[in-house]
Amino acid sequence: MSKEEYLLAPIGVIRSELTQRETAPRQGYEGAPEAWVEIYPENADALLGTKPGDEIIVITWLDRANRSTLQVHPGRQPDAPLTGVFATRSPDRPNPVGLHRAKIIEIAGLQLKVGPIEAIDRTPVIDIKPVLSRSDDR
Amino acid sequence: MSKEEYLLAPIGVIRSELTQRETAPRQGYEGAPEAWVEIYPENADALLGTKPGDEIIVITWLDRANRSTLQVHPGRQPDAPLTGVFATRSPDRPNPVGLHRAKIIEIAGLQLKVGPIEAIDRTPVIDIKPVLSRSDDR
Repeated sequence: MSKEEYLLAPIGVIRSELTQRETAPRQGYEGAPEAWVEIYPENADALLGTKPGDEIIVITWLDRANRSTLQVHPGRQPDAPLTGVFATRSPDRPNPVGLHRAKIIEIAGLQLKVGPIEAIDRTPVIDIKPVLSRSDDR
Repeated sequence: MSKEEYLLAPIGVIRSELTQRETAPRQGYEGAPEAWVEIYPENADALLGTKPGDEIIVITWLDRANRSTLQVHPGRQPDAPLTGVFATRSPDRPNPVGLHRAKIIEIAGLQLKVGPIEAIDRTPVIDIKPVLSRSDDR
């Protein structure tokens, strides 16, 4: 079987007060703010049925990540044992997909206010899914 | 800001007894089987620290999905109201990313036996992340 590659086209973008990866919270529960997800007009129809109060998973492409990183010292702690990125939530990894569980607070046209979310400003958004408790929680 | 596109390179592939999208369970909890995730050799170092018993999120690229679908009748129910794909877990969506929460049952070299998982045979795997209860559950 050939190893094909696939082209990702962002469906929107994060607008956040967080601008620096180094100072952003590592996870949403670590004091992350609310942010806006701006959906691109060609995807407007895909929002039908989305409403404030929905628990969602915002899936991002962490475009400032280092894709050649395979091992890290987790938690930004230089003394932590070297660990494979598939056993960590490091943004640096071969395909830097970000998962952000958040709530929709407000919808204004193609803009969704969501939070808490640790993604930084201008991060591409590649998908939005509703949380399915039976699938996503255990 | 320009809307850049990004290239996804699979890090592995699903080996499953499920071969037909139409007859596969829609979610892992709907009676899905165990399957093997075969990691490609160039990503071997990224597995350091991964072990049986770990709860993980396998992230796939649903390569047989229809990327031009923006609205569906959810749950394979033709009578369900038309809904935007961002409010459903339909595999058909602009970027067909699949999220599969599962447990690692066994590790044999670069093969991880995981389950339950509804992804079908030969589905590309693009990332593996450990579950972080505080981020992924609420």
